[in-house]
Amino acid sequence: MKRLLKNGTVVNVFTDELINANVLIDGERIIGVGEYPDADADIVEDVSGKYICPGLIDGHIHIESTMLTPCELSKLCAINGTTSIIADPHEIANVCGADGIKYMLEASEGLPVSVYVVLPSCVPASGFDESGAILEAEELRELYAHPRVVGLGEMMNYPGVLFGDEKVMSKISDGLKLCGLVNGHAPLLSGKALDKYISAGIYDDHECSSVDEAKERIRKGQAVMIRRGSAARNLADLLPLFDEPWNRRCMLVTDDYHPHDLLTKGHINSIIREAVESGRSALVGIRMSSLQAARHFGLDGVGAIAPGYIADIAVFDDLKELKAFAVYKAGKKVVEDYNVLDFTAPLVSSEISRSVLGSFKLNELTEDSFTVKPQGSRCRVIKVSAGTLLTDELDTELDFSKDNGIDVSRDILKLAVVERYGNSGNIGLGYINGIGLKKGAIASSVSHDSHNLIVVGASTEDMVIAANRINQLGGGCIVVADGEIICEMPLPIGGLMTDAVATVAAKQNHNLDLAVAELGVAEGINPFMNMSFVALPVIPHLKMTTLGLVDVDNQKKLPLFLD
Amino acid sequence: MKRLLKNGTVVNVFTDELINANVLIDGERIIGVGEYPDADADIVEDVSGKYICPGLIDGHIHIESTMLTPCELSKLCAINGTTSIIADPHEIANVCGADGIKYMLEASEGLPVSVYVVLPSCVPASGFDESGAILEAEELRELYAHPRVVGLGEMMNYPGVLFGDEKVMSKISDGLKLCGLVNGHAPLLSGKALDKYISAGIYDDHECSSVDEAKERIRKGQAVMIRRGSAARNLADLLPLFDEPWNRRCMLVTDDYHPHDLLTKGHINSIIREAVESGRSALVGIRMSSLQAARHFGLDGVGAIAPGYIADIAVFDDLKELKAFAVYKAGKKVVEDYNVLDFTAPLVSSEISRSVLGSFKLNELTEDSFTVKPQGSRCRVIKVSAGTLLTDELDTELDFSKDNGIDVSRDILKLAVVERYGNSGNIGLGYINGIGLKKGAIASSVSHDSHNLIVVGASTEDMVIAANRINQLGGGCIVVADGEIICEMPLPIGGLMTDAVATVAAKQNHNLDLAVAELGVAEGINPFMNMSFVALPVIPHLKMTTLGLVDVDNQKKLPLFLD
Repeated sequence: MKRLLKNGTVVNVFTDELINANVLIDGERIIGVGEYPDADADIVEDVSGKYICPGLIDGHIHIESTMLTPCELSKLCAINGTTSIIADPHEIANVCGADGIKYMLEASEGLPVSVYVVLPSCVPASGFDESGAILEAEELRELYAHPRVVGLGEMMNYPGVLFGDEKVMSKISDGLKLCGLVNGHAPLLSGKALDKYISAGIYDDHECSSVDEAKERIRKGQAVMIRRGSAARNLADLLPLFDEPWNRRCMLVTDDYHPHDLLTKGHINSIIREAVESGRSALVGIRMSSLQAARHFGLDGVGAIAPGYIADIAVFDDLKELKAFAVYKAGKKVVEDYNVLDFTAPLVSSEISRSVLGSFKLNELTEDSFTVKPQGSRCRVIKVSAGTLLTDELDTELDFSKDNGIDVSRDILKLAVVERYGNSGNIGLGYINGIGLKKGAIASSVSHDSHNLIVVGASTEDMVIAANRINQLGGGCIVVADGEIICEMPLPIGGLMTDAVATVAAKQNHNLDLAVAELGVAEGINPFMNMSFVALPVIPHLKMTTLGLVDVDNQKKLPLFLD
Repeated sequence: MKRLLKNGTVVNVFTDELINANVLIDGERIIGVGEYPDADADIVEDVSGKYICPGLIDGHIHIESTMLTPCELSKLCAINGTTSIIADPHEIANVCGADGIKYMLEASEGLPVSVYVVLPSCVPASGFDESGAILEAEELRELYAHPRVVGLGEMMNYPGVLFGDEKVMSKISDGLKLCGLVNGHAPLLSGKALDKYISAGIYDDHECSSVDEAKERIRKGQAVMIRRGSAARNLADLLPLFDEPWNRRCMLVTDDYHPHDLLTKGHINSIIREAVESGRSALVGIRMSSLQAARHFGLDGVGAIAPGYIADIAVFDDLKELKAFAVYKAGKKVVEDYNVLDFTAPLVSSEISRSVLGSFKLNELTEDSFTVKPQGSRCRVIKVSAGTLLTDELDTELDFSKDNGIDVSRDILKLAVVERYGNSGNIGLGYINGIGLKKGAIASSVSHDSHNLIVVGASTEDMVIAANRINQLGGGCIVVADGEIICEMPLPIGGLMTDAVATVAAKQNHNLDLAVAELGVAEGINPFMNMSFVALPVIPHLKMTTLGLVDVDNQKKLPLFLD
């Protein structure tokens, strides 16, 4: 079946030219670009005034951060002209191990967007934590054989690389040998340390936050992924990378991106749009996120409108808004007249389904579970602040004669991190400052990177209700006050993702924000977001895991009580 | 063993910058580029005032055209800063089949230059010819497993591609599946035919002779190899490709390059030098022939001075002459103070040696062998002209009453093409105009692409002497006059290559030219060069093979006599 797109303007990513030409597609592939007549095709589509672009590629995304299934996410990608994403299933792997990765692969089969996977390199992220799984090189190795696995995911453990840790180097060696690609993640590394990190075979990074940092990396052979996620928005600072010669070594990525942003802003097209609004070239943005991304990930025949290339095509109304009028995935129309066409959702095998849906294994919690046994009065309290994931240590006297040390007047709330995989059953207990809840409790099964159950409360009773409800839901986020559930968002898939459609998910997510606002959270604090990083003992300075407080800088456990 | 190159200027091919930096090498790899002190290394080399470049890559060369063994050639490459070549052993494969390819692989093991091989796709070039071997997809398939085989070589049979010939498509399919690369060769193809050719998966071409031709190819996704060989000198016409964005999709290649040019001009560095003399950027030329060539051929970790990259390095005195002061191959010094360091020549297995040294299987020839039996008087004579490989048909009366039709006064010489593989023993006999010999005969076992024995003479007796002597030598080129051997160049390796060192080979080659000049060749005619293409029935219009005259345009045999 031959299809002709006629009268459009072709975006040529080899030359950054706009060329008036017809595009002839035969099955999955483009077979001609030029003066092809209607007679050459079975279907002729007139795209006068529109731009025929290679479909866009997101070079680094955690699907879990969108809270959507790959299937739901794919609709929001397709409708924005994205035809491929490179997903690192790091979160679900921390929850379910190899089963989590298999879930992502099975659940992304045959979607309107190609979902390529890089294997999570750091599960768990830290030895001071209890994740649902540990993935060593052996467990990862067999997964490379999957045709959509394209490398090893972001190697966050850069000390492990610099010190030549055997397990880390073994994973890198496999990634290079079996796929030729290892993604980097080493913010602010430079000079000799960066040389050593790159020499291990790590030729990209998505953590650059300044032009100087990016330029050093490009000079040293890394491809730089310009990120504009929901929280980490590096685009504005990195706009100079759109200039020559830097743009030749860049891609565009979202990393962690929330459903509301996807729905309201768009996907990679919205990053290009933002760059265009700042006076940068759309052609450069499109080239970065098509041909260059495809070459970087070794996606043969992907990323251009040219003979022999796979017909992954986005037809945009213009090159400013980049609204996708039509999208083709391997020659099949998946977006028509701005709407995603129906497709058959992939089936996940029952074994994998059971694994990701049954990740919550928690006994009923009681008030006793969340009661701190006083061993003094002076405590180390985790202090969170607006606009940063860094935390500080606040040393303060707590009054254990009432509310088990909670002091709403000073914004001292209780914090619990509950091992939820049915292993140790450990509960890390302590206190947190800076969240600002005046009453009630919030809880979430999204807590990086181990995704244990995290609970913050002005009321121990409400904490118990919140935690047990999340357990009942098999994962989710919840707001409880005065013994009542105010709002909840079930996340039954690994405790990370919803089975709801994107619009519903975005609404539930928004309602959680509204509900916590009612409870009086501090200015600039997104409690669920901030809370979700309080349990990650690789971001300084003081964190809480199921094992208790962790001094991140010195990588050691700390007692709650100072005395 | 760590080596530090200090105080040099590093050519950064990611950014086209010149950066003052030290380069630290550990074993085969570069591990650092920056402010590394002497103390970090075991060996420190000061390269003050010099330029540290990635070693150059020739993206397309027929080693056989240099008449040198891979070992001898590698010295001339290394001394010019070349560290990798992509060789298509098309000629030796026509002579010895898979053994010829194996010879090239064995004879290029461990040289100071990495010799990558693309497998000859068109052996024989034509069905109107008798080559020493026929290579179908089956014979080629097993050769892809060799670590230095990087693809399928130039697909000259573009009609076969356009008509979807099953054998041709099978070879292409293997090349793409097993190596992801098929080299193109389709001069002047454009428009829909070019689309179809490229759609088969052919993403480069080295036959471009105009900027317009090159631009069409680049727009359609092909990489363009800018060629400056000994005869085909496309560089001057293609200089505008050094501009952005075109240069991003180009490489530099020699294709067919003679030992004298290698000795006197240089290799890829001399192409860059020529471009610089015409006002083009050396940095662009270096980038084209390092990083870009390496990426095109999938040579991981090759082509840049950056952490983790293989230490293939050329230290040039400047970026105008590009004289190589020192060269490193995978961290090992191979050129020091402008001289090639000793290395152990590779051993070729006795089985393969026997095959390439024993390719000549010819019985003693007699005057009868070269005597045309008159079947009339009006003959089709091949007319060669200066400056072109195209030939024409000259229809003329010949006088068979003396010298069996030879007429020196009208420059009608006798031409014979002798099957020399011990198969049919066929001899194609006829006449040639335009060579200009006043007496004697010349003969050569270099006759594209089947490399049968080709003989041209003003004297049938001298033809017999010349032919029998070549047979004795097991291949070569020769000039005979008045019953005496005037000059000869033995080419015992497949009848194509000498075992002499480069200087000797170049001298022998030059002596042949002087000797034929003495015999009065026509202005602008290089008899050995012109003669070597008279037997190639894929270049228009009238050619001679062992089967007799071939009308190339209509792809049919023609009788010698018109009557």
